Amino acid sequence: MIPPNIQELDANDGLAHKRKAFNLPDHVIYLNGNSLGPLPASVPGRIESLIKQEWGTDLITSWNKHGWIDLPQQVGEKLAGLLGAAPGQVVCCDSVSINLFKLLSAALQLRPERKVVLSQADNFPTDLYMAQGLESLLGSGCMDLNTVPAENLLPSLNEQVAVLYLTQVDFRSGARHDIAQLTRAAHEQGALVIWDLSHSVGVLPLELDAWQVDFAVGCGYKFLNGGPGAPAFIYANATHHDQFQQRLQGWMGHAAPFSFSSEYQAASGIAQFLTGTPNIISLAALDAALDVFADIEADELHGKVCQLTDLFLQLVDSEPTLRDLKLQSPSDSGQRGAQLAWSHPQAWGISRALHSLGVMVDYREPDLLRFGFSPLVLSFEEVGRSVQALRKILGERIYTRAEFQNRLKVT
Amino acid sequence: MIPPNIQELDANDGLAHKRKAFNLPDHVIYLNGNSLGPLPASVPGRIESLIKQEWGTDLITSWNKHGWIDLPQQVGEKLAGLLGAAPGQVVCCDSVSINLFKLLSAALQLRPERKVVLSQADNFPTDLYMAQGLESLLGSGCMDLNTVPAENLLPSLNEQVAVLYLTQVDFRSGARHDIAQLTRAAHEQGALVIWDLSHSVGVLPLELDAWQVDFAVGCGYKFLNGGPGAPAFIYANATHHDQFQQRLQGWMGHAAPFSFSSEYQAASGIAQFLTGTPNIISLAALDAALDVFADIEADELHGKVCQLTDLFLQLVDSEPTLRDLKLQSPSDSGQRGAQLAWSHPQAWGISRALHSLGVMVDYREPDLLRFGFSPLVLSFEEVGRSVQALRKILGERIYTRAEFQNRLKVT
Repeated sequence: MIPPNIQELDANDGLAHKRKAFNLPDHVIYLNGNSLGPLPASVPGRIESLIKQEWGTDLITSWNKHGWIDLPQQVGEKLAGLLGAAPGQVVCCDSVSINLFKLLSAALQLRPERKVVLSQADNFPTDLYMAQGLESLLGSGCMDLNTVPAENLLPSLNEQVAVLYLTQVDFRSGARHDIAQLTRAAHEQGALVIWDLSHSVGVLPLELDAWQVDFAVGCGYKFLNGGPGAPAFIYANATHHDQFQQRLQGWMGHAAPFSFSSEYQAASGIAQFLTGTPNIISLAALDAALDVFADIEADELHGKVCQLTDLFLQLVDSEPTLRDLKLQSPSDSGQRGAQLAWSHPQAWGISRALHSLGVMVDYREPDLLRFGFSPLVLSFEEVGRSVQALRKILGERIYTRAEFQNRLKVT
Repeated sequence: MIPPNIQELDANDGLAHKRKAFNLPDHVIYLNGNSLGPLPASVPGRIESLIKQEWGTDLITSWNKHGWIDLPQQVGEKLAGLLGAAPGQVVCCDSVSINLFKLLSAALQLRPERKVVLSQADNFPTDLYMAQGLESLLGSGCMDLNTVPAENLLPSLNEQVAVLYLTQVDFRSGARHDIAQLTRAAHEQGALVIWDLSHSVGVLPLELDAWQVDFAVGCGYKFLNGGPGAPAFIYANATHHDQFQQRLQGWMGHAAPFSFSSEYQAASGIAQFLTGTPNIISLAALDAALDVFADIEADELHGKVCQLTDLFLQLVDSEPTLRDLKLQSPSDSGQRGAQLAWSHPQAWGISRALHSLGVMVDYREPDLLRFGFSPLVLSFEEVGRSVQALRKILGERIYTRAEFQNRLKVT
């Protein structure tokens, strides 16, 4: 195999200039942007101004003076481009978990004659937990969560299915679903779709309107770099607006919140997915973080993701000392998200040893090393150095040292 | 009536030194701490450090290194003293609205043979909306929301009532319920109680354990000064832990979140009320804000609240130019929270005119002026000056000017 020309890849990287839009410590190669995105350089100043000027000085008047009250929709609109969504269909609020509950309880109302929510057995846990919670609340006479292996999803789609409820990118392997194909298949059976795009948004091309996706959620703190525990988002296709009751109905989803009426009357459009008072500090951090994406197309992001992951894979594959790493991700970049995972019996020790060499990666029980590839901050040269670090650790069996074998805490 | 000696009140104010723990602009008298608490001086530095050091430099390792993962419980424990709660019963997360849904759906499981949720017709709107949403979700065969005027609450408590669902302090009038009495009366009928303490915590003495309160929620951004849209809290009496399924069951409420099991297994104790990934920036702001309370008892806070509101009331009552203001709050400080409200046909214009004189107050549709009294920041001299401003505005009918009559936006 011809060794790739890493310098050439960096020289031709149309996103290389984005690295300076982030504050990353020197000597850290950050392969964890799929878990917590790094700090955009625009965030500290925005938050300082929000806290000192807006909260500290302008106080309560900031709800209007600084547009706090509009932030959930404003941040949603900033995201719409990355989702392939026309205006008025995206809002940022609450957590992925809470938003899944809102959407699932809404979608079921649109298919009152059906009970089955079809999902994947290894969907992200919180997605399954929220559905299990709704199932218990409604009673099994009203909802039936059916989870199957990925390969059985298409055969399990039938006229009993109310909602196909999936995460596009598997959080362990990075394997990715074809949203367009599965959405079409669901619709052919009269079912609706809810997609969790937590590991997709910011790295994969998404065309939710064109694919006629019904509903989606996603995470603000992974590839969107919105900060730890950033608000999540909801996409709801306009064709479904005002066709159901959003059950977590709080005052921010009311048609006239400041009329303080005792009877709930839902706002029209995407605003009805709001519940409680929006968390302004966190929304402002996400708002500032999204400015980094203002001049980028999702295709550019995805192009670099494919190059980064292909390079990493090629370097690992070409290295005999790394043959004990078992690839758990699709080798075809068209089949995966922005991450790669390998299993190894000493995965925990290896992840600790990588950290000690400045390469930050994820470990997932019981034996998985997970590498995330944030196209806005990573260089190809860093990919090369990461694999060198892996080679050193496995070649010298550094992971067998006691300090790398402490299994007490997952970091 | 003898005019109160304002200077003497300030000289004897045991909380006067707390004013310097807040960054408030000069020349503003802030009577809006019941809506958005002012900025504690400890918050900007804490958030700067969180963003630049913890997020920016330590990145994903901060979940353990800086204890992010423990923040919901840590902030809960800081609050416990103000609530009269033994350890292990308070957690901070999500919004008041979301938390009400969690508690109400939990409490109903503890009284499966009963359907009625008894509340007050003018309870805070979001409390009613969330209950209406749950009622729709469950179907009226499972839950029946019954709202009555305050004076009918006690007579309406009977053996059909599963949950008495109330806000202690009325958001308009400031009238306050006797939690101990109503909780006892509910228990005598076999009903449970859920108290919304959004306008109580930080200003009223609370003894939730001693009063045998079952459940409570409250707001982080009013008298706790946690910042705009700060996370809310949940109190769940330990006697009820592990007796029900918390239905908004997300991965943070799992017994072992990082095992990524596909089946939900609730954490024991208060952690089961967590749902999605905690919002770390906002939790840290609330955490820093609560340090202001570390050396104060709720009785001290309440003592000053009574003095401040009594003084304001006495000054208004003694002023003939203010006789068109109709008091909507209890005149007895033992019957109210930390706010006073008056109605006036020109309330909106008066509130604007007060702002222009540096006195920040709330206006509530259709004709209410609402004054909140944060005992940590207000001096008695500021109370005196506020009433002088009111006197000037009403005496000179300043509120009739066009710039004070714009009704387009509620601020």
